Amino acid sequence: MRQITLDDIDHLTLGATLLGTGGGGDPYIGALMARQAIEEHGPVRVVDAAALPPDGLVAAVAIVGAPTVIIERVPAGREFAESLRALSRYLGRELVAIMPIEVGGMNTLIPVASAAELNLPLINADGMGRAFPEIEMTVFTLAGLAATPITVADEKGNLGIFETVDNKTAEVLGRTAVVQLGMANAVTQYPMTARQCAESAITGSLSYCLRLGGFLASARDGGAATALDELLDFAGGRRVFAGKVVDVDRRATDGFTRGHCDIEHFDDPTRTLRLLIQNELLVALDDGRPVVTPPDLICVLDQENAQPITTETLAYGQRVEVVALPAAPRWRRDGFLELVGPAAFGYDIDYVPFGGRN
Amino acid sequence: MRQITLDDIDHLTLGATLLGTGGGGDPYIGALMARQAIEEHGPVRVVDAAALPPDGLVAAVAIVGAPTVIIERVPAGREFAESLRALSRYLGRELVAIMPIEVGGMNTLIPVASAAELNLPLINADGMGRAFPEIEMTVFTLAGLAATPITVADEKGNLGIFETVDNKTAEVLGRTAVVQLGMANAVTQYPMTARQCAESAITGSLSYCLRLGGFLASARDGGAATALDELLDFAGGRRVFAGKVVDVDRRATDGFTRGHCDIEHFDDPTRTLRLLIQNELLVALDDGRPVVTPPDLICVLDQENAQPITTETLAYGQRVEVVALPAAPRWRRDGFLELVGPAAFGYDIDYVPFGGRN
Repeated sequence: MRQITLDDIDHLTLGATLLGTGGGGDPYIGALMARQAIEEHGPVRVVDAAALPPDGLVAAVAIVGAPTVIIERVPAGREFAESLRALSRYLGRELVAIMPIEVGGMNTLIPVASAAELNLPLINADGMGRAFPEIEMTVFTLAGLAATPITVADEKGNLGIFETVDNKTAEVLGRTAVVQLGMANAVTQYPMTARQCAESAITGSLSYCLRLGGFLASARDGGAATALDELLDFAGGRRVFAGKVVDVDRRATDGFTRGHCDIEHFDDPTRTLRLLIQNELLVALDDGRPVVTPPDLICVLDQENAQPITTETLAYGQRVEVVALPAAPRWRRDGFLELVGPAAFGYDIDYVPFGGRN
Repeated sequence: MRQITLDDIDHLTLGATLLGTGGGGDPYIGALMARQAIEEHGPVRVVDAAALPPDGLVAAVAIVGAPTVIIERVPAGREFAESLRALSRYLGRELVAIMPIEVGGMNTLIPVASAAELNLPLINADGMGRAFPEIEMTVFTLAGLAATPITVADEKGNLGIFETVDNKTAEVLGRTAVVQLGMANAVTQYPMTARQCAESAITGSLSYCLRLGGFLASARDGGAATALDELLDFAGGRRVFAGKVVDVDRRATDGFTRGHCDIEHFDDPTRTLRLLIQNELLVALDDGRPVVTPPDLICVLDQENAQPITTETLAYGQRVEVVALPAAPRWRRDGFLELVGPAAFGYDIDYVPFGGRN
């Protein structure tokens, strides 16, 4: 993967929707921004972090906020470039490349738009290998890298810069500023050297996302069941549950969308899968028993065409297929459960090893 | 007034308590910090803004947060110097002097400590001529000067920097960061040139505060009634009500202390004065009728010795004298009622001209 052109946006968007595990903001809004930026400024160069000058400055740009609000108020765009420029000014150094913080949801596409606009290469890597709701939930935190200085910019021209003693405090201050500025804003974070990025990031994320999107495009064009099998085979995933959505509870609170979704099994209406939501689909409970837990991925697909359904578009009566994908291998190191396991989200549930007996 | 020495702290603290109109944080904590800094670093030079290099950078340093919290958690001190240094680094310029943002409460004394510690002169001026609860409530805002960039620092090493499109947004973002960092933190704000300060600040504030403190010291040493008469004569103030505290309601919420205090008249127990509190004593209602309104000052004094009582130390049974002082003349210009009149605090009450018929 050498560049991202207009032709890639559709597959990238499909893949990002899947890896968004229901959240991360509507990738179609990000896709609009990416398309417009590429039309105006040309294709985006994609690079491996290892190919950049090792001491060059890189950082991740993203939108932070509640998906519900992001849908209602499409970002103007200029706030992303401004948050990147503000970080560069603050550190007194130019950026040599930017990266997505998460390869899921809107934040996969927004860095594409920013890279085109600022004529910077985009690194084929990310910090989550999926979408997660909080700034500190990255393999970078696990590697001991600071999320700060971070910059928060809105479309009106307001700017916040934070330096914090730990990444959890960065999350708290960053998100609070976001909520005060209107519930969803541009955030540039995790300034690091290209060498640090190469050593700690989840690599190949954009290629992976694009490939998954390819399978989903095939599914959309017919033969959904076969395409989904191929996708699960490629990603090492599995089918979890097939049924009808019978209840959706979803609230936008303090910068998050929280709630749950209940799905009744097609073959056994007494059996219910409950999905717990915090921006993303985080936990799957099969008749109360945890079957998929973070950081592994839960994806809800339309049974008809295997297209991913976001938490924002989940609705009563939908006939869905729930699948699970394994977390990126880079997560498997000391401390990952404290950072992104069930307890990190306030769930009193043990982590269920992926593919473990259910 | 050429300098502030250890001998001045007592009077300055008394004056600041009076001008704090019940709020602004306990000046005695500020006094401890100022004493310690002067003992360590020597007296503080006091200057007029007009005597500084006109293009020199000046700024105000303060603690922002709920007084209740400030009492419970005495500031470490280093966060104030850090917020000043962070602003200087951010702007790439050295400060030539610092000033108090308000000449009432703790924030009169904290800049004394910071000036001693950083060996900078302290400007004999302020932005409020009293204490007010919000960052944007200054004569600087009225003069069209920006409160930002502002820096927020805590004692742990966390730092926030904000640039906003208006001073109200600076207040919202700054206070939110303060609440998230522990309800009370160091804030440096209103960076401006010495010329802008000379043209827009309330001048002579520290001298005025020291002079008022002198009267209160006399009152404390005996002859309270006479000393209070002299003080009111000097300041153009008046007695409003004398009675017994019969009810105090006080809550720390979202970075503010809010509530009210009811006082029953000595001579007519059916007559009650209600004081409305938002960190400071803001409105006095005599049997429901507004008699003192912001920006004019309401001060509650112990009837015995004419010592000011803060909203934090108001208690049932206290025998008190309520007096009013006129707002600094610099407030009297277009737009002051929108910024610091009763409506600015959410009160549906007309401004009562000071000394108007009651």
